[in-house]
Amino acid sequence: MALTKMTSTIIFTHTSSSSPSSSTSRLICFNNTKLQKLQKLTISHYRRSNPVPISISSRGFSTTIITHCSSSSSTTATQVNNETSANVIDGKRVAKDIREEIAVEITRMKEAIGIVPGLAVILVGDRKDSATYVRNKKKACDSVGINSYEVRLAESSTEEEVINHISKFNDDASVHGILVQLPLPSHMDEQNVLNAVCIEKDVDGFHPLNIGRLAMRGREPLFVPCTPKGCIELLHRYDIPIKGKRAVVIGRSNIVGMPAALLLQREDATVSIVHSRTKNPEEIVRQADIIISAVGQPNMVRGSWVKPGAVLIDVGINPVEDQGSPRGYRLVGDICYEEASKVASAITPVPGGVGPMTIAMLLSNTLLSAKRIHNFR
Amino acid sequence: MALTKMTSTIIFTHTSSSSPSSSTSRLICFNNTKLQKLQKLTISHYRRSNPVPISISSRGFSTTIITHCSSSSSTTATQVNNETSANVIDGKRVAKDIREEIAVEITRMKEAIGIVPGLAVILVGDRKDSATYVRNKKKACDSVGINSYEVRLAESSTEEEVINHISKFNDDASVHGILVQLPLPSHMDEQNVLNAVCIEKDVDGFHPLNIGRLAMRGREPLFVPCTPKGCIELLHRYDIPIKGKRAVVIGRSNIVGMPAALLLQREDATVSIVHSRTKNPEEIVRQADIIISAVGQPNMVRGSWVKPGAVLIDVGINPVEDQGSPRGYRLVGDICYEEASKVASAITPVPGGVGPMTIAMLLSNTLLSAKRIHNFR
Repeated sequence: MALTKMTSTIIFTHTSSSSPSSSTSRLICFNNTKLQKLQKLTISHYRRSNPVPISISSRGFSTTIITHCSSSSSTTATQVNNETSANVIDGKRVAKDIREEIAVEITRMKEAIGIVPGLAVILVGDRKDSATYVRNKKKACDSVGINSYEVRLAESSTEEEVINHISKFNDDASVHGILVQLPLPSHMDEQNVLNAVCIEKDVDGFHPLNIGRLAMRGREPLFVPCTPKGCIELLHRYDIPIKGKRAVVIGRSNIVGMPAALLLQREDATVSIVHSRTKNPEEIVRQADIIISAVGQPNMVRGSWVKPGAVLIDVGINPVEDQGSPRGYRLVGDICYEEASKVASAITPVPGGVGPMTIAMLLSNTLLSAKRIHNFR
Repeated sequence: MALTKMTSTIIFTHTSSSSPSSSTSRLICFNNTKLQKLQKLTISHYRRSNPVPISISSRGFSTTIITHCSSSSSTTATQVNNETSANVIDGKRVAKDIREEIAVEITRMKEAIGIVPGLAVILVGDRKDSATYVRNKKKACDSVGINSYEVRLAESSTEEEVINHISKFNDDASVHGILVQLPLPSHMDEQNVLNAVCIEKDVDGFHPLNIGRLAMRGREPLFVPCTPKGCIELLHRYDIPIKGKRAVVIGRSNIVGMPAALLLQREDATVSIVHSRTKNPEEIVRQADIIISAVGQPNMVRGSWVKPGAVLIDVGINPVEDQGSPRGYRLVGDICYEEASKVASAITPVPGGVGPMTIAMLLSNTLLSAKRIHNFR
């Protein structure tokens, strides 16, 4: 397979807590000029025309970011497996298995008690990327037999209107999960809106009460946030031991890094959290048996950062310019796959790793919610 | 000063989440036979008559615990300072300063709006240690001008009775903080009882909603748990930088370790959490610029675990048998003070370090609550 070095235009996403996007859109950013029209995200732009290392210490990790890690321009689980020593953790396949399991459970539930789980999605405004995510969620619901409900509101809607719709879904017995697609228009207070979702239907798992329970020993969250839940599920499905292992989470966002660290700790890993203020992150990362990276920086984690035999879970989905691709860009992870896969024992590809797991976990949370509400086991 | 090696009887406290004791009693255990009559705590007992290392890998840290770290039998901040290279972090003095500041604020508030903060404590049963803690809290309230209210209920009370009293305090405008002294009698569900305290008066800061907000970037908890808040306050008062530093928290209890780690991360430290399932904890601890230890194991952290120049915050308050003491025991920390103080740049003594800070932070939280409820700045 031919390897091509790419000249990249970077958009560095600072995965801040203030504007998390919802489920499937998380950590996804676009740096293709064509696609930039689609986005109004408040992210910092760092651009260069030369493929040289770029220091972004002022806002992000105080390290040198390589944007042109050699890798195949079209990476699939099967293809990369032939080139690397690491086992490829095939998130696409696992997600498919999980969907099939969910479909079976939904049929069983429907036959036993006549209940079909329902997921409601509220979309405000006309962002095309948000519309795509909502469409994908609807498709996924259809594929497993979850009823989906959708409310589309104009960009000019008021916060009150959105909250009114949430309240109706809170009271609607046929709805077991409510998602508000983020980002919301800037005139709305995201926290107010999200807090209106009743905790029993907060399938995103972002309610502080859920996060608090996730952090506390002896407490159980009602829902675990989808992306970190997907990361841990991958480790479980591949029988990768967590207990007693050194784990490093790179990134501390509310939607991935922080809950991933809490989940690993619940499973008795010894966890360190590396973030933009960490000095010499590679020194800490190199100690890890398990690395979960969720920063949204293309190829930040080099092969030299990885302990031989480590397991790598790459949450980053970063588009980098690729003139050879029909779309003009390709997706790469936070981890320099080409280098790291030669050192690691197992690694998730991008795409086809964590990505497909997020929607699978959303479906799983919706089923869980319906089961709990109807006391069905 | 004469150094005496002590033969110890150990009670190893596994600081589990299931039965945290309230504020000042936290992490305090007694191993003096006389004092054992006072306690009915569900803790594991490990006893030996010889002062040899004891391995407690089955329940606690998989390491060898030295119970007889040489140290002066009567340790005060002033005394130890003469023997060590580390600066002594004098929690007793800082706590006194804070109480004085609180007293000034309370006077200002009373004069301005006629409001005096009030703290209500509910004590169930006749545990002498709990009665002592409650008495100490009352004294502390008196010393700064906080009104204290106390309800004592019989061991045989029902959960409903306790919750009824909490509800009354929830509705009582003169009460700004509510503490339920733990442990509760075994026939009560602690979680049910604690959840009855309204979050606006949860001065202990243990409500999962508070913990969730503590964990989330961009969110603010209403209250920070007293002991970890005291640890960070000590660092602040001694101008010890946290941002960008490597911090290791030893212990992951809901009441100290976990919230301490979240607080350090909020201040941009790079945090690792070491716990009973961590292999080779000393290797990780040795990387830390700041160590907060909260496991309740006498002298577990040896001098060899400490990076030269590190700052050590010792939350453990472990009584070890001491025939030379009038009480028959003395208190030591989790950190082997004698050894570690020769390596560290700063260290908290036990007693006189973190201990006095816990009640000071409880008073601080009560004042904070009253200010917030009455919108006084």
